[in-house]
Amino acid sequence: MPSLSDFDLDELHRFAADIACEAGAYLRDQQLARTRAGGASGHLDRSIEIKENAADIVTHADMHSEQLITNAIKQRYPTHKIIGEESYSAGQDKRFLLDDDPTWIIDPLDGTVNFVHLFPTCCVSVGFCVNKVPVVGAIFAPLLSGLHPTNASGALYSGAKSLGAWSTPPWAHAVPLPYIPPQPLPADAPKGCLFTAEWGKARSDAPGSNLVKKSTSFINMAAEVGGRGGKGGMVHGVRSLGSAALDLVYVATGAVDIFWEGGCWEWDVCAGMIIIAEAGGRVVPSQPPSEAYLTDRSLAIPDAGIGSRLYLAVRACAGTEGETEREAQDRLVREVWRRTERLDYVRPE
Amino acid sequence: MPSLSDFDLDELHRFAADIACEAGAYLRDQQLARTRAGGASGHLDRSIEIKENAADIVTHADMHSEQLITNAIKQRYPTHKIIGEESYSAGQDKRFLLDDDPTWIIDPLDGTVNFVHLFPTCCVSVGFCVNKVPVVGAIFAPLLSGLHPTNASGALYSGAKSLGAWSTPPWAHAVPLPYIPPQPLPADAPKGCLFTAEWGKARSDAPGSNLVKKSTSFINMAAEVGGRGGKGGMVHGVRSLGSAALDLVYVATGAVDIFWEGGCWEWDVCAGMIIIAEAGGRVVPSQPPSEAYLTDRSLAIPDAGIGSRLYLAVRACAGTEGETEREAQDRLVREVWRRTERLDYVRPE
Repeated sequence: MPSLSDFDLDELHRFAADIACEAGAYLRDQQLARTRAGGASGHLDRSIEIKENAADIVTHADMHSEQLITNAIKQRYPTHKIIGEESYSAGQDKRFLLDDDPTWIIDPLDGTVNFVHLFPTCCVSVGFCVNKVPVVGAIFAPLLSGLHPTNASGALYSGAKSLGAWSTPPWAHAVPLPYIPPQPLPADAPKGCLFTAEWGKARSDAPGSNLVKKSTSFINMAAEVGGRGGKGGMVHGVRSLGSAALDLVYVATGAVDIFWEGGCWEWDVCAGMIIIAEAGGRVVPSQPPSEAYLTDRSLAIPDAGIGSRLYLAVRACAGTEGETEREAQDRLVREVWRRTERLDYVRPE
Repeated sequence: MPSLSDFDLDELHRFAADIACEAGAYLRDQQLARTRAGGASGHLDRSIEIKENAADIVTHADMHSEQLITNAIKQRYPTHKIIGEESYSAGQDKRFLLDDDPTWIIDPLDGTVNFVHLFPTCCVSVGFCVNKVPVVGAIFAPLLSGLHPTNASGALYSGAKSLGAWSTPPWAHAVPLPYIPPQPLPADAPKGCLFTAEWGKARSDAPGSNLVKKSTSFINMAAEVGGRGGKGGMVHGVRSLGSAALDLVYVATGAVDIFWEGGCWEWDVCAGMIIIAEAGGRVVPSQPPSEAYLTDRSLAIPDAGIGSRLYLAVRACAGTEGETEREAQDRLVREVWRRTERLDYVRPE
């Protein structure tokens, strides 16, 4: 197994942020070229016609963004492996290919449906793993802005193992994550929590399908306390953005308390996992390893495997007199597990 | 009844945009003051402590934003009436107070739950009505950016009757809405459509409750074609932002094809209604005036009443050889009506 101390995480962090921003700027230019106003200048030019249909545009943009990132990696780190969403998905199956070697896991365009529709919640996600654990991550959303205004367009979120997590990284105007110091978890959580979840692509309505299980879980989380046979969570709000990478980012900022998801892949979560970890949050399995975990507090809740396709992210919590930070997060995890269904997402061995 | 020609809509439009931006900048400053990085400069200052709880912050910000806007209106247009979300909600009941007089309808902070959580989808919404119809509107989202980069922080969307609708208004760098020329509506819509909807505040899970009806409708829209007893809509994606005003904005840009909502109020929709109308979209009732409207194409689909609390917004459509723009929108409206439940939101007479 490689040793983490062999890697210059600060340098890798800068590199990840740079290429995420570069690919994101390319994606924005592609969007602008589709609009009536045209071009990066933002000036009105009605002469620009839409020459490709939406599916062509997204395929082209996705592929080019991935090529841009992989070329940069190959030039700078020729010995590193690369797992990219586009090239990977084009393969025969979706086996879990990550091993202990230093590996970049990239999603050149997360939120492709949004991108097609010119909806702003899409991003580039660039993560780097050693020994199957994400240690560097950068997520750049070209059509959003961060909380803190900068001169640059788009919003960058990034982090590196033991160094920290930021919106606007240290070499610009450091804005550490979470935005505000971690708050204690309310005694009646998930009540009062902001909850994000995604409807996803599995749309069969057969009994026991993932769509049915997901929607049942959403309703449980939303319903008043006492409702749904005691499963009502009365969360403060339910949000769906159509981008798992951005859902994870908002957990890292502290805006979102809970992100519960099944069905996405390692390229959707790799960068977000390290950003959340460095911001004091946790990413654990979306369902308990066994039902005993719901009640037995002596069982340590594990981290989610990066390729597990089942993720539950919770924000950083402050400890209180009777509860450590980690105990508060464990409590929130169990409360979510109790209200959500067990999803069926598998992958080839 | 006042005559619309008595009003300088261009001047009213500039004024609405100015005060929406001014109130939005104030809201952003309030958010920044809560963060660890502090202040508008974005520089790290860990000395800033959070002195109020989230509820205090939002109440204070909401009230101050409304005061800022109403003071500006009273000074510039002393004869105009004002309906503001904050002052209105503080009253005894929620009767519909709008009459034919020139009236500003404002939501000084739409998406308050998001604001509390530092989630970026919140905005200021400033609308102006004559004869109970919105004729000027401006929506400013201080924590988002528009598609076209500008030097200013935040995203402004605005419009005025017969003048047009814009992201970044004509006096800056005109970006007309929708972003791309209206596209034809697919033959199998709502398949392929981006659908936004909100879970809202009604969380009873009793049979026939609005929560049950809403979630049933969401599942119908999401499920595969042929599913849900023929009601499966297989929309491209389901999104929830927690701000009706922004949902309407994204319909106006063309990003969102369908926004279906019950329960919000005139201040949530006033500005968005005129922006959508000027961008070629439609806002109609979320449910048919009678079931005959589902099949009888000779029945003209009415516009939604601004105080009706039940809204369905659809984007601008291009006509095709066999179908006018309006017929395409009518078709989409009927397809949504067929898949969604009849909600129960009333208001005092």
